[in-house]
Amino acid sequence: MTFTPPAKSIQFLLNHSVDLEAVLSAPAFEEVNAELIGDILTGAADFAENVWAPTNWDGDQNPAKLEGDNVIASPGFKEAYQAFVEAEWLSLATSSDIGGMGLPQLVKVGTDEMFYAANMALGLCPMLTSSAAKAIEAHASDELKRRYLPKMVNGEWTGAMCLTEPQAGSDLGPVRTKAVSNGDGTYSITGQKIYITWGDHDIADNVIHLVLARLPDAPAGSKGISLFICPKVFVGEDDSLGERNNFKAIGLEHKLGIHGSPTCVMDFDRAIGWMVGEENRGLACMFTMMNEARLFVGVQGVAIGERAYQAALDYAKERVQGRTFTGEETIIGHPDIRRNLIDMKTRLAGARAICMATAAAGDLGDHQREALLTPIAKSYGSDVGVEVSSIGVQIHGGMGYVEETGAAQHYRDSRIAPIYEGTNGIQALDLVGRKLRRDGGEGMAALIADIESIEALAQSASSKVDLNVCLPALKLGVATLKAATDKVLNADEGDAIAGATPYLNLVADIIAGAYLIRAVAKGAIAEDPLAENMAAMARYHALAIMPKAQAQLELLDGGTKAVFDFPMELLADL
Amino acid sequence: MTFTPPAKSIQFLLNHSVDLEAVLSAPAFEEVNAELIGDILTGAADFAENVWAPTNWDGDQNPAKLEGDNVIASPGFKEAYQAFVEAEWLSLATSSDIGGMGLPQLVKVGTDEMFYAANMALGLCPMLTSSAAKAIEAHASDELKRRYLPKMVNGEWTGAMCLTEPQAGSDLGPVRTKAVSNGDGTYSITGQKIYITWGDHDIADNVIHLVLARLPDAPAGSKGISLFICPKVFVGEDDSLGERNNFKAIGLEHKLGIHGSPTCVMDFDRAIGWMVGEENRGLACMFTMMNEARLFVGVQGVAIGERAYQAALDYAKERVQGRTFTGEETIIGHPDIRRNLIDMKTRLAGARAICMATAAAGDLGDHQREALLTPIAKSYGSDVGVEVSSIGVQIHGGMGYVEETGAAQHYRDSRIAPIYEGTNGIQALDLVGRKLRRDGGEGMAALIADIESIEALAQSASSKVDLNVCLPALKLGVATLKAATDKVLNADEGDAIAGATPYLNLVADIIAGAYLIRAVAKGAIAEDPLAENMAAMARYHALAIMPKAQAQLELLDGGTKAVFDFPMELLADL
Repeated sequence: MTFTPPAKSIQFLLNHSVDLEAVLSAPAFEEVNAELIGDILTGAADFAENVWAPTNWDGDQNPAKLEGDNVIASPGFKEAYQAFVEAEWLSLATSSDIGGMGLPQLVKVGTDEMFYAANMALGLCPMLTSSAAKAIEAHASDELKRRYLPKMVNGEWTGAMCLTEPQAGSDLGPVRTKAVSNGDGTYSITGQKIYITWGDHDIADNVIHLVLARLPDAPAGSKGISLFICPKVFVGEDDSLGERNNFKAIGLEHKLGIHGSPTCVMDFDRAIGWMVGEENRGLACMFTMMNEARLFVGVQGVAIGERAYQAALDYAKERVQGRTFTGEETIIGHPDIRRNLIDMKTRLAGARAICMATAAAGDLGDHQREALLTPIAKSYGSDVGVEVSSIGVQIHGGMGYVEETGAAQHYRDSRIAPIYEGTNGIQALDLVGRKLRRDGGEGMAALIADIESIEALAQSASSKVDLNVCLPALKLGVATLKAATDKVLNADEGDAIAGATPYLNLVADIIAGAYLIRAVAKGAIAEDPLAENMAAMARYHALAIMPKAQAQLELLDGGTKAVFDFPMELLADL
Repeated sequence: MTFTPPAKSIQFLLNHSVDLEAVLSAPAFEEVNAELIGDILTGAADFAENVWAPTNWDGDQNPAKLEGDNVIASPGFKEAYQAFVEAEWLSLATSSDIGGMGLPQLVKVGTDEMFYAANMALGLCPMLTSSAAKAIEAHASDELKRRYLPKMVNGEWTGAMCLTEPQAGSDLGPVRTKAVSNGDGTYSITGQKIYITWGDHDIADNVIHLVLARLPDAPAGSKGISLFICPKVFVGEDDSLGERNNFKAIGLEHKLGIHGSPTCVMDFDRAIGWMVGEENRGLACMFTMMNEARLFVGVQGVAIGERAYQAALDYAKERVQGRTFTGEETIIGHPDIRRNLIDMKTRLAGARAICMATAAAGDLGDHQREALLTPIAKSYGSDVGVEVSSIGVQIHGGMGYVEETGAAQHYRDSRIAPIYEGTNGIQALDLVGRKLRRDGGEGMAALIADIESIEALAQSASSKVDLNVCLPALKLGVATLKAATDKVLNADEGDAIAGATPYLNLVADIIAGAYLIRAVAKGAIAEDPLAENMAAMARYHALAIMPKAQAQLELLDGGTKAVFDFPMELLADL
């Protein structure tokens, strides 16, 4: 169950699949250069492989436990987390204004993939900390920022997001947790929250909760929800830790996977909190966090997929079974096994490139593009993670079904990513509704133009690298993107949303392939010796994955009609 | 976690998707009629729902245990199994010559789907018993038959298949377990077998093992393996149970799913066995069992998928979250949820129809067709099971990731079906190699002609049921089947096997849709009032599932080329 971060693949895509020069020439990143990025990726790879990866299986086999009022994390997690804090990995892309290293998000996509692959369950803790810190930075008062931000930025304290209640999940409007003013600037928060990731633990000294709750006179629904900061342990004027606040974990979920991540039922019983942002504007503040979190959930899918892939590859190189077609001794000589491995690797590269494009758009301040790509990165990355880890189990054969091999853990762990931070169905609705139809297709038209421009780039690289099979796939892909986008823009609302998932999948399969072609072409032009290697993936993608978009295009016509024509009562037995 | 067997759907497909009249007019089934079949399906549904289904979750949460030399099954399993034996469900399709009820396999596909859905882990025990009994019936001496068959046929004793060893799984050639003649007609068997499903337990009084082992002078490889019968408890001349044989379970696997099914490591230490069939012909005898088992593994996929579907449907009808497009209160009003439910239900119906077609071919003595369809039924049924149970988790959202909901169990349980009884990759090779290319495409040409004939049938039903959107899909499907089959027949061996899985998927998506169309057309012509209901599925299949075959056709060209062009050393990091 070893894991070697795919540092070269990450570095190559980071260098060539996006416009790294443009990112580095942005004022915010003027002290960053390619050499520094290379060093950071190397350091992260070393840390992920040697410090975190060895704790992954222990976390799965020894889930966090609730003992009295305290959650005790899996063995080894405290040490692994403290080493992470000491190495300052958490604040890599945090603004230097508040004590971070100020690197582009693009780099964090690279490093965090390695950390999630090494130990996804543990990686969720810094992910939530980072998101919570962002929300505090954006919306909290200076006093709250002064008190909480520095120790969240460096990870000394961790963060948690208390949104969900049994009746309020994808739709947070029905949140019932109450907040009553104490008249001294503080509020008393009472209610139960569920699915609170790393809601309590013993790997750091404090847990800073951001809690959605409703003031007594608040309007009903989503416009009556405010956001509060509730520290697990009160912080004195001198930053010293005092008494415990009036909330605690009262249960841990028994989950399919990510066993090392404590998923808490949190009970707030007149817990003391401070308001963040304006009254009744809590949901908007929370969405600040959600967008970043969504991208990183996509990265998690790629990460678990990569680890599952490596395990399958190792197994395929060791397992002797049957006479193979290619004559190799082990099952990697069976074409079906090899096809599956190539497929896994190529899909992962495509999804990785989409995540990087999303981060780069944010780094460049192109918020329209970032917003457009975020649901695609989240959904595609997480779906690829599940598919790839399922193939990983399959390549192991019977050994994959036995837990001790570890392949099954990846299959179980990966399954959460399409669900949390907005289900993939919700991502598709977000893409079609807010991101495509709301601006009349402007942002998508710009993206398509960008994809279309890759053709000329690929042609200009044709003397250096063989992308012949990619050009027709790219051309067809652009035409398919246009046709599908027109359909969705011109559809009535029902057809648009019934076709949202096929549309998202179509866009993702095409742009993933296109980004790989761009990376190869730019890499070849830049004389990167690895361009030829990545070209094998771009070619496979063009031949085997991009064509799948055509079937999705059919679905946009026939499939949505069929959804509404299908009588609901027939969903039961005939 | 209730389960209601889809008796009407099963009955409808049984009546109309295959040629039931022809099956019932075969001499072997002259005492069987449609009314009897209806009664049996009703009885099986009642038994599955009320006796077996309630034990499913207990089995998952309380796996079988190894205590000393004995395996103790999950709580409630012994009673549930004994009730199954008493109700004579096991011998439903066993020849009346040896004490069975002599019904068609087609009916058993229907009843066993219900039993697997109710409790797949427990259902494996009668499945293996039935397969082992078949092998004994076909290959053992009269004396062995007399001694073991009657109590295996009625399920008083269960059967187990001891094939796999650590170095011998998909390829059984390297089996090392030794068998030495004792000179008295018995053999001493020594070796370890792994992955032995229901290899030991306490739910019946004896376990009859069929063991592959090698005689001292046997040729190397698969031509030197013989088959032996080894009872757990010796059986006296008067059928009384005596001493225990010299073998036992020495370990149980800790698996991803089917926790209620004990997967044993069996240690044979000079165990006494009797040879079945001829020396060194053991593998051939074993394949007698495998073919039947493969069909029923496909049925398992459909079964678990059906249960996962029902759980998702129930949840979608109860869960209130967000304002829905259709105005319904619960999430079933979200088009994306509804699309997923329709998709699950339709895929299941298609896979079920393929399983029935396979069984009907066997019942009709059309062994070429049965052999051709078996790998498709196994592979497609099991893949659909995994996909559908994954969507089932997704529809539950966060609740699907929490074990107590039960959705996750289906996801875990279903994952074994693509692996055991020959991985789905091996099924695809079997289809392309033994079943397609070996007879020069004759069997497949007959199947395609059969599919093509559905068009005229559908047209003749056009005044009774609306299959308009199905006709072009069917026409395109037939053309695609022909084109793909020609490609595979004319390809060199490497391309044929590299494209085996895409080819299998293509064939399956098309024939599944075609069989639904046939069922609807025949049902409408027969004035079955449920034809209109099934028509909604046939239409959805034609619009949303059959078109996927086109992408697979592309893969047959581009994808196989890409597999061999991809340098193996690039499978590591760039």
